[in-house]
Amino acid sequence: MKLIDGNAIAESIIEELAVEVGQLSGKKPVVAFIRVGDDPASVSYVRKKEKAAERIGIESRLYLLAEDVSKEELFAQIDGLNADDKVNGILIQAPLPKHIDETETFNRVLPDKDVDGFNTLNIGKLCQEDEDGFVACTPAGIVELIERSGIETEGKHVVVLGRSQIVGKPAALLMMRKALPGNATVTVCHSRTTDLPSITRQADVLIAAIGRANFVTGDMVKDGVAVIDVGINRVEDATKERGYRLVGDVEFEAVAPKSSHITPVPGGVGPMTVAMLMHNTLRAFKAAKVK
Amino acid sequence: MKLIDGNAIAESIIEELAVEVGQLSGKKPVVAFIRVGDDPASVSYVRKKEKAAERIGIESRLYLLAEDVSKEELFAQIDGLNADDKVNGILIQAPLPKHIDETETFNRVLPDKDVDGFNTLNIGKLCQEDEDGFVACTPAGIVELIERSGIETEGKHVVVLGRSQIVGKPAALLMMRKALPGNATVTVCHSRTTDLPSITRQADVLIAAIGRANFVTGDMVKDGVAVIDVGINRVEDATKERGYRLVGDVEFEAVAPKSSHITPVPGGVGPMTVAMLMHNTLRAFKAAKVK
Repeated sequence: MKLIDGNAIAESIIEELAVEVGQLSGKKPVVAFIRVGDDPASVSYVRKKEKAAERIGIESRLYLLAEDVSKEELFAQIDGLNADDKVNGILIQAPLPKHIDETETFNRVLPDKDVDGFNTLNIGKLCQEDEDGFVACTPAGIVELIERSGIETEGKHVVVLGRSQIVGKPAALLMMRKALPGNATVTVCHSRTTDLPSITRQADVLIAAIGRANFVTGDMVKDGVAVIDVGINRVEDATKERGYRLVGDVEFEAVAPKSSHITPVPGGVGPMTVAMLMHNTLRAFKAAKVK
Repeated sequence: MKLIDGNAIAESIIEELAVEVGQLSGKKPVVAFIRVGDDPASVSYVRKKEKAAERIGIESRLYLLAEDVSKEELFAQIDGLNADDKVNGILIQAPLPKHIDETETFNRVLPDKDVDGFNTLNIGKLCQEDEDGFVACTPAGIVELIERSGIETEGKHVVVLGRSQIVGKPAALLMMRKALPGNATVTVCHSRTTDLPSITRQADVLIAAIGRANFVTGDMVKDGVAVIDVGINRVEDATKERGYRLVGDVEFEAVAPKSSHITPVPGGVGPMTVAMLMHNTLRAFKAAKVK
Protein backbone atom coordinates (compact mmCIF):
# COMPACT_ATOMS: atom_id res chain seq x y z
CA MET A 1 0.00 0.00 0.00
CA LYS A 2 1.29 3.39 -1.02
CA LEU A 3 -0.05 6.44 0.76
CA ILE A 4 -0.69 9.29 -1.65
CA ASP A 5 0.73 12.35 0.04
CA GLY A 6 -1.46 15.18 -1.23
CA ASN A 7 0.47 17.76 0.74
CA ALA A 8 3.77 16.74 -0.85
CA ILE A 9 2.32 16.56 -4.37
CA ALA A 10 0.61 19.94 -3.96
CA GLU A 11 3.93 21.32 -2.68
CA SER A 12 5.72 20.03 -5.78
CA ILE A 13 3.18 21.71 -8.02
CA ILE A 14 3.51 24.98 -6.15
CA GLU A 15 7.28 24.81 -6.48
CA GLU A 16 7.03 24.06 -10.20
CA LEU A 17 4.65 26.98 -10.66
CA ALA A 18 6.99 29.26 -8.70
CA VAL A 19 9.85 28.33 -11.02
CA GLU A 20 7.69 29.01 -14.05
CA VAL A 21 6.43 32.35 -12.73
CA GLY A 22 9.98 33.28 -11.78
CA GLN A 23 10.98 32.88 -15.41
CA LEU A 24 8.28 35.22 -16.67
CA SER A 25 9.68 38.51 -17.82
CA GLY A 26 7.64 41.60 -17.12
CA LYS A 27 4.25 41.50 -15.45
CA LYS A 28 3.05 38.70 -13.19
CA PRO A 29 -0.24 36.78 -13.10
CA VAL A 30 -2.98 38.32 -11.00
CA VAL A 31 -5.79 36.45 -9.28
CA ALA A 32 -8.74 38.20 -7.62
CA PHE A 33 -10.56 36.65 -4.68
CA ILE A 34 -14.06 37.75 -3.79
CA ARG A 35 -15.20 36.75 -0.33
CA VAL A 36 -18.72 37.51 0.82
CA GLY A 37 -19.23 37.61 4.58
CA ASP A 38 -17.00 36.18 7.29
CA ASP A 39 -17.72 32.46 7.33
CA PRO A 40 -14.68 31.07 9.21
CA ALA A 41 -14.11 28.26 6.70
CA SER A 42 -14.20 30.77 3.82
CA VAL A 43 -11.77 33.06 5.63
CA SER A 44 -9.40 30.13 6.13
CA TYR A 45 -9.69 28.87 2.52
CA VAL A 46 -9.08 32.29 1.02
CA ARG A 47 -6.09 32.80 3.29
CA LYS A 48 -4.57 29.50 2.10
CA LYS A 49 -5.04 30.57 -1.49
CA GLU A 50 -3.45 33.96 -0.82
CA LYS A 51 -0.45 32.31 0.78
CA ALA A 52 0.02 29.87 -2.11
CA ALA A 53 -0.24 32.73 -4.60
CA GLU A 54 2.36 34.72 -2.70
CA ARG A 55 4.78 31.81 -2.61
CA ILE A 56 4.45 31.31 -6.36
CA GLY A 57 4.78 34.97 -7.21
CA ILE A 58 1.19 35.39 -8.32
CA GLU A 59 -0.30 38.70 -7.21
CA SER A 60 -3.58 38.25 -5.37
CA ARG A 61 -6.21 40.86 -4.68
CA LEU A 62 -8.84 40.32 -2.05
CA TYR A 63 -12.28 41.90 -2.30
CA LEU A 64 -14.42 41.63 0.80
CA LEU A 65 -18.16 42.13 0.53
CA ALA A 66 -20.70 42.20 3.33
CA GLU A 67 -22.93 39.19 3.96
CA ASP A 68 -25.96 41.28 2.93
CA VAL A 69 -24.41 42.54 -0.32
CA SER A 70 -26.95 42.82 -3.12
CA LYS A 71 -26.67 40.72 -6.24
CA GLU A 72 -26.24 43.94 -8.22
CA GLU A 73 -23.28 45.06 -6.11
CA LEU A 74 -21.64 41.64 -6.32
CA PHE A 75 -22.14 41.49 -10.08
CA ALA A 76 -20.79 45.02 -10.49
CA GLN A 77 -17.66 43.88 -8.66
CA ILE A 78 -17.33 40.86 -10.93
CA ASP A 79 -17.93 42.95 -14.04
CA GLY A 80 -15.20 45.35 -12.99
CA LEU A 81 -12.73 42.50 -12.58
CA ASN A 82 -13.84 40.96 -15.89
CA ALA A 83 -13.06 44.26 -17.59
CA ASP A 84 -9.70 44.73 -15.86
CA ASP A 85 -7.00 43.46 -18.23
CA LYS A 86 -4.57 43.13 -15.34
CA VAL A 87 -6.71 40.47 -13.66
CA ASN A 88 -6.20 36.99 -15.10
CA GLY A 89 -8.29 34.87 -12.76
CA ILE A 90 -11.34 35.48 -10.59
CA LEU A 91 -12.35 33.23 -7.73
CA ILE A 92 -15.60 33.72 -5.84
CA GLN A 93 -15.35 31.83 -2.58
CA ALA A 94 -18.30 29.52 -1.98
CA PRO A 95 -20.65 29.25 -0.19
CA LEU A 96 -22.47 32.46 -1.05
CA PRO A 97 -25.29 33.85 1.09
CA LYS A 98 -28.64 32.24 0.31
CA HIS A 99 -30.08 35.30 -1.41
CA ILE A 100 -27.50 35.02 -4.18
CA ASP A 101 -27.70 32.28 -6.79
CA GLU A 102 -24.32 30.54 -7.07
CA THR A 103 -24.67 29.23 -10.63
CA GLU A 104 -25.69 32.66 -11.90
CA THR A 105 -22.79 34.23 -10.02
CA PHE A 106 -20.21 31.76 -11.31
CA ASN A 107 -21.52 32.32 -14.83
CA ARG A 108 -21.00 36.06 -14.43
CA VAL A 109 -17.23 35.48 -14.42
CA LEU A 110 -15.81 35.57 -17.94
CA PRO A 111 -15.00 32.01 -19.07
CA ASP A 112 -11.40 33.12 -19.78
CA LYS A 113 -10.98 34.22 -16.14
CA ASP A 114 -12.98 31.35 -14.60
CA VAL A 115 -10.04 29.69 -12.88
CA ASP A 116 -12.47 27.83 -10.64
CA GLY A 117 -13.95 26.06 -13.69
CA PHE A 118 -17.55 26.54 -12.57
CA ASN A 119 -18.77 28.51 -15.59
CA THR A 120 -21.26 26.50 -17.68
CA LEU A 121 -19.15 27.09 -20.80
CA ASN A 122 -16.10 25.55 -19.15
CA ILE A 123 -18.15 22.56 -18.04
CA GLY A 124 -19.33 22.15 -21.65
CA LYS A 125 -15.73 22.31 -22.84
CA LEU A 126 -14.76 19.62 -20.36
CA CYS A 127 -17.50 17.41 -21.78
CA GLN A 128 -16.30 18.17 -25.32
CA GLU A 129 -12.69 17.46 -24.35
CA ASP A 130 -11.71 20.97 -25.38
CA GLU A 131 -8.52 21.62 -23.48
CA ASP A 132 -8.92 25.38 -23.77
CA GLY A 133 -11.41 25.26 -20.91
CA PHE A 134 -10.68 25.38 -17.20
CA VAL A 135 -11.30 22.23 -15.18
CA ALA A 136 -12.67 22.74 -11.67
CA CYS A 137 -9.94 22.48 -9.06
CA THR A 138 -11.09 19.38 -7.17
CA PRO A 139 -11.51 17.09 -10.21
CA ALA A 140 -8.34 18.57 -11.72
CA GLY A 141 -6.57 17.78 -8.45
CA ILE A 142 -7.87 14.20 -8.51
CA VAL A 143 -6.48 13.69 -12.01
CA GLU A 144 -3.15 15.18 -10.98
CA LEU A 145 -2.91 12.89 -7.94
CA ILE A 146 -3.65 9.88 -10.15
CA GLU A 147 -1.07 10.91 -12.72
CA ARG A 148 1.70 11.77 -10.29
CA SER A 149 1.14 8.60 -8.28
CA GLY A 150 1.56 6.47 -11.42
CA ILE A 151 -1.93 4.99 -11.17
CA GLU A 152 -2.92 3.53 -14.53
CA THR A 153 -6.36 4.37 -15.89
CA GLU A 154 -6.17 3.19 -19.52
CA GLY A 155 -8.73 0.41 -19.93
CA LYS A 156 -9.22 0.25 -16.17
CA HIS A 157 -12.55 0.42 -14.39
CA VAL A 158 -12.91 3.70 -12.53
CA VAL A 159 -15.88 3.85 -10.18
CA VAL A 160 -17.00 7.31 -9.09
CA LEU A 161 -19.14 7.49 -5.99
CA GLY A 162 -21.24 10.64 -6.23
CA ARG A 163 -22.72 12.60 -9.14
CA SER A 164 -22.23 16.20 -8.04
CA GLN A 165 -21.69 18.97 -10.57
CA ILE A 166 -18.41 19.99 -8.99
CA VAL A 167 -16.75 16.63 -8.33
CA GLY A 168 -18.46 13.42 -9.41
CA LYS A 169 -19.54 14.30 -12.92
CA PRO A 170 -16.42 16.22 -14.00
CA ALA A 171 -14.17 13.50 -12.52
CA ALA A 172 -16.14 10.88 -14.48
CA LEU A 173 -15.87 12.91 -17.69
CA LEU A 174 -12.11 13.31 -17.20
CA MET A 175 -11.61 9.61 -16.57
CA MET A 176 -13.50 8.62 -19.74
CA ARG A 177 -11.84 11.16 -22.06
CA LYS A 178 -9.59 10.08 -24.93
CA ALA A 179 -6.39 11.05 -23.16
CA LEU A 180 -4.32 10.09 -20.14
CA PRO A 181 -5.11 9.98 -17.31
CA GLY A 182 -8.37 8.82 -18.77
CA ASN A 183 -9.38 6.20 -21.35
CA ALA A 184 -11.03 4.35 -18.47
CA THR A 185 -14.31 2.48 -18.31
CA VAL A 186 -16.25 4.69 -15.91
CA THR A 187 -19.17 3.90 -13.64
CA VAL A 188 -20.97 6.63 -11.70
CA CYS A 189 -22.82 5.48 -8.57
CA HIS A 190 -24.91 7.50 -6.16
CA SER A 191 -27.62 7.37 -3.53
CA ARG A 192 -30.03 5.58 -5.88
CA THR A 193 -27.61 2.83 -6.84
CA THR A 194 -28.80 -0.64 -5.90
CA ASP A 195 -26.28 -3.19 -4.65
CA LEU A 196 -23.50 -0.65 -4.47
CA PRO A 197 -20.86 -3.06 -3.10
CA SER A 198 -21.14 -5.23 -6.22
CA ILE A 199 -20.18 -2.16 -8.25
CA THR A 200 -17.46 -0.75 -6.01
CA ARG A 201 -15.80 -4.16 -5.78
CA GLN A 202 -15.17 -3.94 -9.53
CA ALA A 203 -13.20 -0.72 -9.17
CA ASP A 204 -9.55 -0.63 -10.18
CA VAL A 205 -9.73 3.02 -9.17
CA LEU A 206 -12.34 4.26 -6.71
CA ILE A 207 -13.11 7.97 -6.44
CA ALA A 208 -15.31 8.56 -3.39
CA ALA A 209 -17.16 11.87 -3.33
CA ILE A 210 -20.47 11.41 -1.55
CA GLY A 211 -19.82 13.21 1.71
CA ARG A 212 -20.69 10.37 4.09
CA ALA A 213 -18.19 9.55 6.79
CA ASN A 214 -16.49 6.15 6.49
CA PHE A 215 -19.09 5.02 3.97
CA VAL A 216 -16.80 2.75 1.96
CA THR A 217 -15.93 -0.25 4.08
CA GLY A 218 -13.29 -2.91 3.57
CA ASP A 219 -15.68 -5.44 2.07
CA MET A 220 -16.70 -2.95 -0.63
CA VAL A 221 -13.35 -2.95 -2.44
CA LYS A 222 -11.18 -5.52 -4.11
CA ASP A 223 -7.52 -6.12 -3.44
CA GLY A 224 -5.25 -3.74 -5.31
CA VAL A 225 -7.73 -0.90 -5.68
CA ALA A 226 -6.43 2.65 -5.91
CA VAL A 227 -8.54 4.94 -3.73
CA ILE A 228 -9.03 8.68 -4.07
CA ASP A 229 -11.07 9.87 -1.10
CA VAL A 230 -12.61 13.29 -1.75
CA GLY A 231 -14.80 13.34 1.36
CA ILE A 232 -14.07 15.64 4.28
CA ASN A 233 -16.51 14.79 7.06
CA ARG A 234 -16.60 15.68 10.74
CA VAL A 235 -17.16 12.93 13.24
CA GLU A 236 -17.52 13.51 16.94
CA ASP A 237 -14.36 12.80 18.88
CA ALA A 238 -14.24 13.69 22.58
CA THR A 239 -10.48 13.11 22.65
CA LYS A 240 -9.97 16.12 20.37
CA GLU A 241 -9.93 19.60 21.77
CA ARG A 242 -12.37 20.85 19.13
CA GLY A 243 -14.67 17.88 19.75
CA TYR A 244 -14.43 16.30 16.31
CA ARG A 245 -11.99 14.84 13.84
CA LEU A 246 -12.01 14.85 10.04
CA VAL A 247 -12.52 11.61 8.16
CA GLY A 248 -13.09 10.79 4.51
CA ASP A 249 -15.82 8.86 2.73
CA VAL A 250 -13.63 5.77 3.02
CA GLU A 251 -13.00 3.76 6.18
CA PHE A 252 -9.26 4.19 5.95
CA GLU A 253 -8.11 1.53 8.42
CA ALA A 254 -10.13 -1.20 6.69
CA VAL A 255 -9.60 -0.16 3.07
CA ALA A 256 -5.93 0.87 3.17
CA PRO A 257 -4.55 -2.67 3.65
CA LYS A 258 -6.35 -3.81 0.47
CA SER A 259 -5.28 -0.79 -1.60
CA SER A 260 -2.42 -0.30 -4.03
CA HIS A 261 -2.69 3.47 -3.39
CA ILE A 262 -4.88 5.52 -1.07
CA THR A 263 -5.25 9.17 -0.14
CA PRO A 264 -5.48 10.11 3.54
CA VAL A 265 -8.06 12.58 4.87
CA PRO A 266 -6.95 15.23 5.57
CA GLY A 267 -3.85 15.59 3.42
CA GLY A 268 -5.08 13.94 0.24
CA VAL A 269 -7.24 15.74 -2.29
CA GLY A 270 -7.72 18.82 -0.09
CA PRO A 271 -4.33 20.47 -0.60
CA MET A 272 -4.52 19.84 -4.34
CA THR A 273 -7.41 22.23 -4.94
CA VAL A 274 -5.31 25.26 -3.99
CA ALA A 275 -2.44 24.06 -6.19
CA MET A 276 -4.78 23.54 -9.17
CA LEU A 277 -6.29 26.99 -8.70
CA MET A 278 -2.81 28.43 -9.05
CA HIS A 279 -2.14 26.21 -12.04
CA ASN A 280 -5.32 27.52 -13.70
CA THR A 281 -4.36 31.12 -12.90
CA LEU A 282 -0.99 30.77 -14.58
CA ARG A 283 -2.70 29.18 -17.61
CA ALA A 284 -5.17 32.09 -17.76
CA PHE A 285 -2.26 34.51 -17.65
CA LYS A 286 -0.43 32.75 -20.47
CA ALA A 287 -3.59 32.52 -22.59
CA ALA A 288 -4.26 36.25 -22.09
CA LYS A 289 -0.72 37.08 -23.18
CA VAL A 290 -1.18 35.15 -26.43
CA LYS A 291 -4.30 37.13 -27.32
CA MET B 1 -39.80 -9.19 -25.81
CA LYS B 2 -41.34 -5.89 -26.77
CA LEU B 3 -40.21 -4.21 -29.95
CA ILE B 4 -39.83 -0.47 -29.46
CA ASP B 5 -41.42 1.08 -32.51
CA GLY B 6 -39.48 4.29 -33.03
CA ASN B 7 -41.55 5.24 -36.04
CA ALA B 8 -44.80 5.01 -34.07
CA ILE B 9 -43.41 6.88 -31.05
CA ALA B 10 -41.96 9.61 -33.28
CA GLU B 11 -45.31 9.81 -35.02
CA SER B 12 -47.09 10.29 -31.68
CA ILE B 13 -44.72 13.10 -30.78
CA ILE B 14 -45.25 14.81 -34.12
CA GLU B 15 -49.01 14.56 -33.67
CA GLU B 16 -48.78 15.97 -30.14
CA LEU B 17 -46.63 18.84 -31.38
CA ALA B 18 -49.08 19.52 -34.22
CA VAL B 19 -51.93 19.80 -31.72
CA GLU B 20 -49.88 22.16 -29.58
CA VAL B 21 -48.85 24.33 -32.53
CA GLY B 22 -52.45 24.34 -33.75
CA GLN B 23 -53.49 25.89 -30.47
CA LEU B 24 -51.00 28.74 -30.74
CA SER B 25 -52.63 32.01 -31.53
CA GLY B 26 -50.79 34.35 -33.81
CA LYS B 27 -47.39 33.60 -35.26
CA LYS B 28 -45.95 30.13 -35.68
CA PRO B 29 -42.54 28.70 -34.77
CA VAL B 30 -39.86 29.04 -37.44
CA VAL B 31 -36.87 26.76 -37.93
CA ALA B 32 -34.03 27.53 -40.32
CA PHE B 33 -32.03 24.76 -41.99
CA ILE B 34 -28.60 25.45 -43.41
CA ARG B 35 -27.32 22.82 -45.79
CA VAL B 36 -23.84 23.08 -47.26
CA GLY B 37 -23.27 21.16 -50.49
CA ASP B 38 -25.34 18.33 -51.94
CA ASP B 39 -24.35 15.26 -49.97
CA PRO B 40 -27.23 12.85 -50.72
CA ALA B 41 -27.66 11.83 -47.07
CA SER B 42 -27.81 15.49 -46.00
CA VAL B 43 -30.35 16.26 -48.72
CA SER B 44 -32.50 13.38 -47.48
CA TYR B 45 -32.21 14.29 -43.78
CA VAL B 46 -33.09 17.92 -44.37
CA ARG B 47 -36.07 16.90 -46.51
CA LYS B 48 -37.36 14.67 -43.68
CA LYS B 49 -37.04 17.56 -41.24
CA GLU B 50 -38.85 19.92 -43.62
CA LYS B 51 -41.71 17.45 -44.00
CA ALA B 52 -42.05 16.95 -40.23
CA ALA B 53 -42.06 20.72 -39.70
CA GLU B 54 -44.75 21.14 -42.33
CA ARG B 55 -46.95 18.48 -40.75
CA ILE B 56 -46.66 20.13 -37.35
CA GLY B 57 -47.27 23.64 -38.62
CA ILE B 58 -43.73 24.84 -37.99
CA GLU B 59 -42.46 27.11 -40.76
CA SER B 60 -39.14 25.98 -42.13
CA ARG B 61 -36.68 27.97 -44.18
CA LEU B 62 -33.97 26.28 -46.17
CA TYR B 63 -30.66 27.98 -46.87
CA LEU B 64 -28.43 26.22 -49.39
CA LEU B 65 -24.77 27.06 -49.51
CA ALA B 66 -22.17 25.78 -51.96
CA GLU B 67 -19.71 23.08 -50.89
CA ASP B 68 -16.85 25.60 -51.23
CA VAL B 69 -18.56 28.30 -49.15
CA SER B 70 -16.10 30.24 -47.02
CA LYS B 71 -16.31 30.16 -43.26
CA GLU B 72 -17.00 33.90 -43.35
CA GLU B 73 -19.98 33.49 -45.65
CA LEU B 74 -21.39 30.62 -43.59
CA PHE B 75 -20.96 32.57 -40.36
CA ALA B 76 -22.57 35.65 -41.90
CA GLN B 77 -25.57 33.48 -42.75
CA ILE B 78 -25.72 32.16 -39.18
CA ASP B 79 -25.33 35.66 -37.73
CA GLY B 80 -28.21 36.89 -39.86
CA LEU B 81 -30.46 34.11 -38.59
CA ASN B 82 -29.30 34.69 -35.01
CA ALA B 83 -30.37 38.33 -35.37
CA ASP B 84 -33.71 37.53 -37.00
CA ASP B 85 -36.36 37.55 -34.25
CA LYS B 86 -38.71 35.53 -36.43
CA VAL B 87 -36.34 32.56 -36.45
CA ASN B 88 -36.63 30.38 -33.34
CA GLY B 89 -34.33 27.51 -34.21
CA ILE B 90 -31.30 27.05 -36.43
CA LEU B 91 -30.06 23.69 -37.63
CA ILE B 92 -26.83 23.31 -39.55
CA GLN B 93 -26.88 19.94 -41.24
CA ALA B 94 -23.74 17.91 -40.56
CA PRO B 95 -21.35 16.85 -41.96
CA LEU B 96 -19.79 20.13 -43.01
CA PRO B 97 -17.02 20.34 -45.63
CA LYS B 98 -13.58 19.65 -44.18
CA HIS B 99 -12.39 23.25 -44.44
CA ILE B 100 -15.02 24.35 -41.90
CA ASP B 101 -14.69 23.48 -38.22
CA GLU B 102 -17.93 21.93 -36.97
CA THR B 103 -17.57 22.80 -33.29
CA GLU B 104 -16.81 26.44 -34.11
CA THR B 105 -19.78 26.53 -36.46
CA PHE B 106 -22.21 24.97 -33.98
CA ASN B 107 -21.01 27.45 -31.37
CA ARG B 108 -21.79 30.31 -33.73
CA VAL B 109 -25.50 29.55 -33.34
CA LEU B 110 -27.00 31.44 -30.40
CA PRO B 111 -27.57 29.03 -27.50
CA ASP B 112 -31.25 30.07 -27.42
CA LYS B 113 -31.68 28.99 -31.05
CA ASP B 114 -29.45 25.91 -30.85
CA VAL B 115 -32.24 23.35 -31.33
CA ASP B 116 -29.61 20.76 -32.24
CA GLY B 117 -28.09 21.04 -28.76
CA PHE B 118 -24.50 21.10 -30.05
CA ASN B 119 -23.49 24.48 -28.60
CA THR B 120 -20.91 24.12 -25.82
CA LEU B 121 -23.11 26.13 -23.47
CA ASN B 122 -26.02 23.73 -23.94
CA ILE B 123 -23.73 20.78 -23.29
CA GLY B 124 -22.60 22.48 -20.08
CA LYS B 125 -26.23 23.01 -19.08
CA LEU B 126 -26.94 19.33 -19.68
CA CYS B 127 -24.08 18.47 -17.35
CA GLN B 128 -25.41 20.94 -14.76
CA GLU B 129 -28.95 19.55 -15.10
CA ASP B 130 -30.18 22.99 -16.13
CA GLU B 131 -33.38 22.25 -18.03
CA ASP B 132 -33.26 25.59 -19.83
CA GLY B 133 -30.71 24.13 -22.22
CA PHE B 134 -31.37 22.15 -25.37
CA VAL B 135 -30.47 18.48 -25.36
CA ALA B 136 -29.07 17.10 -28.62
CA CYS B 137 -31.72 15.26 -30.61
CA THR B 138 -30.31 11.74 -30.54
CA PRO B 139 -29.79 11.49 -26.75
CA ALA B 140 -33.08 13.32 -26.21
CA GLY B 141 -34.73 10.75 -28.49
CA ILE B 142 -33.17 7.88 -26.53
CA VAL B 143 -34.59 9.26 -23.28
CA GLU B 144 -38.01 9.69 -24.88
CA LEU B 145 -38.00 6.11 -26.19
CA ILE B 146 -37.11 4.84 -22.72
CA GLU B 147 -39.81 6.91 -21.06
CA ARG B 148 -42.59 6.11 -23.51
CA SER B 149 -41.74 2.41 -23.48
CA GLY B 150 -42.06 2.31 -19.69
CA ILE B 151 -38.47 1.19 -19.17
CA GLU B 152 -37.44 1.87 -15.58
CA THR B 153 -34.11 3.54 -14.96
CA GLU B 154 -34.29 4.51 -11.27
CA GLY B 155 -31.55 2.59 -9.47
CA LYS B 156 -30.97 0.46 -12.57
CA HIS B 157 -27.63 -0.13 -14.20
CA VAL B 158 -27.46 1.63 -17.56
CA VAL B 159 -24.45 0.69 -19.68
CA VAL B 160 -23.57 3.09 -22.50
CA LEU B 161 -21.38 1.71 -25.25
CA GLY B 162 -19.53 4.65 -26.80
CA ARG B 163 -18.25 7.96 -25.44
CA SER B 164 -18.98 10.34 -28.33
CA GLN B 165 -19.79 13.99 -27.70
CA ILE B 166 -23.10 13.74 -29.51
CA VAL B 167 -24.50 10.46 -28.19
CA GLY B 168 -22.59 8.48 -25.58
CA LYS B 169 -21.64 11.21 -23.14
CA PRO B 170 -24.91 13.17 -23.19
CA ALA B 171 -26.91 9.93 -22.92
CA ALA B 172 -24.81 8.94 -19.91
CA LEU B 173 -25.30 12.37 -18.29
CA LEU B 174 -29.06 12.16 -18.83
CA MET B 175 -29.28 8.68 -17.34
CA MET B 176 -27.39 9.72 -14.18
CA ARG B 177 -29.28 12.97 -13.57
CA LYS B 178 -31.50 13.47 -10.54
CA ALA B 179 -34.73 13.09 -12.50
CA LEU B 180 -36.64 10.48 -14.45
CA PRO B 181 -35.80 8.92 -16.78
CA GLY B 182 -32.47 8.99 -14.99
CA ASN B 183 -31.35 8.25 -11.44
CA ALA B 184 -29.50 5.28 -12.88
CA THR B 185 -26.10 3.86 -12.09
CA VAL B 186 -24.28 4.54 -15.34
CA THR B 187 -21.26 2.86 -16.89
CA VAL B 188 -19.61 4.22 -20.02
CA CYS B 189 -17.63 1.70 -22.06
CA HIS B 190 -15.64 2.23 -25.25
CA SER B 191 -12.85 0.91 -27.44
CA ARG B 192 -10.37 0.86 -24.55
CA THR B 193 -12.61 -1.10 -22.19
CA THR B 194 -11.15 -4.43 -21.14
CA ASP B 195 -13.45 -7.43 -20.75
CA LEU B 196 -16.41 -5.59 -22.22
CA PRO B 197 -18.83 -8.54 -22.00
CA SER B 198 -18.47 -8.65 -18.22
CA ILE B 199 -19.69 -5.05 -18.14
CA THR B 200 -22.46 -5.28 -20.75
CA ARG B 201 -23.84 -8.39 -19.04
CA GLN B 202 -24.57 -6.21 -16.00
CA ALA B 203 -26.77 -3.85 -18.00
CA ASP B 204 -30.44 -3.51 -17.12
CA VAL B 205 -30.52 -0.98 -19.96
CA LEU B 206 -27.95 -1.09 -22.75
CA ILE B 207 -27.44 1.93 -25.00
CA ALA B 208 -25.23 0.92 -27.93
CA ALA B 209 -23.61 3.79 -29.81
CA ILE B 210 -20.25 2.68 -31.13
CA GLY B 211 -20.95 2.40 -34.86
CA ARG B 212 -19.84 -1.20 -35.31
CA ALA B 213 -22.22 -3.55 -37.09
CA ASN B 214 -23.68 -6.34 -34.95
CA PHE B 215 -21.04 -5.74 -32.28
CA VAL B 216 -23.19 -6.72 -29.30
CA THR B 217 -23.79 -10.45 -29.45
CA GLY B 218 -26.27 -12.58 -27.52
CA ASP B 219 -23.72 -13.72 -24.95
CA MET B 220 -22.93 -10.09 -24.06
CA VAL B 221 -26.31 -9.36 -22.45
CA LYS B 222 -28.33 -10.77 -19.60
CA ASP B 223 -31.93 -11.89 -19.75
CA GLY B 224 -34.39 -9.06 -19.43
CA VAL B 225 -32.13 -6.31 -20.71
CA ALA B 226 -33.72 -3.31 -22.42
CA VAL B 227 -31.72 -2.41 -25.53
CA ILE B 228 -31.52 0.94 -27.29
CA ASP B 229 -29.51 0.48 -30.47
CA VAL B 230 -28.24 3.80 -31.81
CA GLY B 231 -25.98 2.33 -34.51
CA ILE B 232 -26.82 2.60 -38.19
CA ASN B 233 -24.27 0.57 -40.12
CA ARG B 234 -24.17 -0.67 -43.69
CA VAL B 235 -23.34 -4.31 -44.31
CA GLU B 236 -22.97 -5.78 -47.77
CA ASP B 237 -26.04 -7.66 -48.93
CA ALA B 238 -26.14 -8.92 -52.51
CA THR B 239 -29.84 -9.72 -52.18
CA LYS B 240 -30.63 -5.99 -51.88
CA GLU B 241 -30.90 -3.83 -54.96
CA ARG B 242 -28.62 -1.20 -53.46
CA GLY B 243 -26.07 -3.86 -52.43
CA TYR B 244 -26.27 -3.34 -48.67
CA ARG B 245 -28.65 -3.37 -45.75
CA LEU B 246 -28.71 -1.33 -42.55
CA VAL B 247 -27.98 -2.97 -39.21
CA GLY B 248 -27.44 -1.65 -35.71
CA ASP B 249 -24.61 -2.11 -33.25
CA VAL B 250 -26.56 -5.00 -31.76
CA GLU B 251 -26.97 -8.45 -33.32
CA PHE B 252 -30.74 -8.22 -33.28
CA GLU B 253 -31.64 -11.88 -33.88
CA ALA B 254 -29.47 -13.08 -31.00
CA VAL B 255 -30.15 -10.29 -28.51
CA ALA B 256 -33.89 -9.74 -29.07
CA PRO B 257 -34.99 -13.06 -27.51
CA LYS B 258 -33.18 -12.16 -24.28
CA SER B 259 -34.51 -8.59 -24.17
CA SER B 260 -37.45 -7.08 -22.33
CA HIS B 261 -37.44 -4.26 -24.90
CA ILE B 262 -35.36 -3.63 -28.00
CA THR B 263 -35.23 -1.05 -30.77
CA PRO B 264 -35.00 -2.24 -34.36
CA VAL B 265 -32.58 -0.69 -36.89
CA PRO B 266 -33.88 1.04 -38.89
CA GLY B 267 -37.04 2.29 -37.19
CA GLY B 268 -35.76 2.72 -33.66
CA VAL B 269 -33.77 5.76 -32.56
CA GLY B 270 -33.48 7.16 -36.09
CA PRO B 271 -37.00 8.59 -36.49
CA MET B 272 -36.82 10.09 -33.00
CA THR B 273 -34.14 12.62 -33.87
CA VAL B 274 -36.43 14.48 -36.27
CA ALA B 275 -39.25 14.49 -33.70
CA MET B 276 -36.95 15.82 -30.97
CA LEU B 277 -35.68 18.56 -33.29
CA MET B 278 -39.27 19.71 -33.70
CA HIS B 279 -39.82 19.43 -29.96
CA ASN B 280 -36.79 21.66 -29.36
CA THR B 281 -37.99 24.17 -31.97
CA LEU B 282 -41.37 24.54 -30.28
CA ARG B 283 -39.59 24.98 -26.93
CA ALA B 284 -37.35 27.68 -28.43
CA PHE B 285 -40.44 29.43 -29.77
CA LYS B 286 -42.18 29.36 -26.41
CA ALA B 287 -39.07 30.55 -24.58
CA ALA B 288 -38.67 33.44 -27.03
CA LYS B 289 -42.29 34.47 -26.49
CA VAL B 290 -41.77 34.65 -22.73
CA LYS B 291 -38.83 37.02 -23.14
